[in-house]
Amino acid sequence: MDRYQIGVDIGGTGVKMGLVGAGGEILRRAAFPTGPSRPWRDVGDEIAAAALSLLEAQGAPPAACDGIGIGAPGMIDHTAGTVRFAANLNWEDAPLVAYLREKLGLPARLANDANCAVLGEATAGAAKGRRHVVMLTLGTGIGGGVIADGRLQEGGAAGGMELGHVALVMGGALCTCGRRGCVEAYASATALIRMAREAMTAHPQSVLARLCGGDPSAMNGRIPFIAARESDAAALSVVNEYIRNVGESIVNFVNIWRPGIFLLGGGIANEGAPLLDPLNAYIKGRCFAGARGAVPPIVRAAMGNDAGIVGAAMLAVNGISQPI
Amino acid sequence: MDRYQIGVDIGGTGVKMGLVGAGGEILRRAAFPTGPSRPWRDVGDEIAAAALSLLEAQGAPPAACDGIGIGAPGMIDHTAGTVRFAANLNWEDAPLVAYLREKLGLPARLANDANCAVLGEATAGAAKGRRHVVMLTLGTGIGGGVIADGRLQEGGAAGGMELGHVALVMGGALCTCGRRGCVEAYASATALIRMAREAMTAHPQSVLARLCGGDPSAMNGRIPFIAARESDAAALSVVNEYIRNVGESIVNFVNIWRPGIFLLGGGIANEGAPLLDPLNAYIKGRCFAGARGAVPPIVRAAMGNDAGIVGAAMLAVNGISQPI
Repeated sequence: MDRYQIGVDIGGTGVKMGLVGAGGEILRRAAFPTGPSRPWRDVGDEIAAAALSLLEAQGAPPAACDGIGIGAPGMIDHTAGTVRFAANLNWEDAPLVAYLREKLGLPARLANDANCAVLGEATAGAAKGRRHVVMLTLGTGIGGGVIADGRLQEGGAAGGMELGHVALVMGGALCTCGRRGCVEAYASATALIRMAREAMTAHPQSVLARLCGGDPSAMNGRIPFIAARESDAAALSVVNEYIRNVGESIVNFVNIWRPGIFLLGGGIANEGAPLLDPLNAYIKGRCFAGARGAVPPIVRAAMGNDAGIVGAAMLAVNGISQPI
Repeated sequence: MDRYQIGVDIGGTGVKMGLVGAGGEILRRAAFPTGPSRPWRDVGDEIAAAALSLLEAQGAPPAACDGIGIGAPGMIDHTAGTVRFAANLNWEDAPLVAYLREKLGLPARLANDANCAVLGEATAGAAKGRRHVVMLTLGTGIGGGVIADGRLQEGGAAGGMELGHVALVMGGALCTCGRRGCVEAYASATALIRMAREAMTAHPQSVLARLCGGDPSAMNGRIPFIAARESDAAALSVVNEYIRNVGESIVNFVNIWRPGIFLLGGGIANEGAPLLDPLNAYIKGRCFAGARGAVPPIVRAAMGNDAGIVGAAMLAVNGISQPI
């Protein structure tokens, strides 16, 4: 009998689900709006109904399903199976695992969405078959996920693997988390846009400023790279500083995990070579032990939003960590 | 039949060995000088002879021994079982595991000494029975070791788990590794002494200066704490800055691993409460998610040098990670 898992990616605007085969392939899909500030129980009911529909459409009995995995934003208690706190869902202490386990009679697991993404990429994406992977998602914030020796790393308690909230510049720029100097405050898309806005204000004649029509609110994460390709000095300076920030963050995580591959996801990673080539060059001589140490290639994540669905599904198979 | 493991701690000046029981207790000991720049093969021969003597003295046949584990300083390739490079032993590419396996006919494993220390403390010391532990050793350099979900973390390749070589201050003080801003350059005993020397030079009337007889070369890691207890302003400023540096480093590692306990070892940790109390207070409000996240107690490591012996012995039992 073919085996299946169900993967669920809960986002601020939509819930994406997939019936996933043993190799990580998405066989069938379902999606529905999350709904603003909708109670977790309502969303859980719709997830359960969609899960049963997916299995039925496949002609698979529930016994053919190894379980349901859910990725959610915010602070996840993976051992308790609860969303401790998710600001953009307006949820607090939502016991999704117990609820879905009860409703579906299937094993259920819950993890942070960035953790699901790296598990998805290691199952069927850019890090397929790798046992040691670090992934950073460069978006509005920074998501981090780690596979060490084939196992998803989740930390001993809620709030672990917050790679965006590691201080890179002690006492530096204020982060959304309230601490100063976090990776997120230096290497997120938000940080890049902040730096570009400062540069366009200081250099109103720059290409950077022209591409925004002189309006700082029109700045986005692509414009600095476009202006840099036109050899705009202001843009080059912003892009180089941003590459240094991301590069130093990557060196830190390489010195910790020495992964075989380092993945970048999120909107900024779509820049491709103009971002990845200088980053690969940057970290080469800077990781601990220089040429004596293996330096991983920095590669763009391959699966986009599907990584979260597949990774969530794979939670049912990857060993869950025990607390304490 | 009782089961045994042999643990070996290779240091720059001496090799310490123990016959270790299943619970991590050291039943018998052996020790000999490493010898300056002595070839690894000679040291390996002496380790093998001492291992056989330990078993014989215990009246235990080799079949009662689960294996031999070795902790060594420097850059270890734990999957190949070689000391890639150890400056203070003057070794390069020393295949100790293959050599001892061949000579003794026993399973052998090799790990970085700081990794062995945390495994020892989690087996029989201050973190006994814990599945999630981070340990920093505050010495001349900084050693780091991590147990995640009960497994020793070693990284995917040589040079992993270098917690001392994570940048805390991007572009900051030059580290011995050649990079700028590393934890080691801000939180090691060496960093504390550097800061105290600068302060005594700037404040020649301070207690800090008096306790050294005005001689910067007489400064050590204890004097700033002694002078701070006399309310010396220069010393208080140094100690507070040092506590901030160590505290910010600890917050970073808590945000990554969320351990149930955080251990400090090395000479500086012997300060006890005057170091640990302010550190515990420092990290409380600063870890990610504030009061919503579990904040581990920072505790002094309990086993001293024995942690390295017991941890090395336990390598034979703790699962070895696979590369790639």
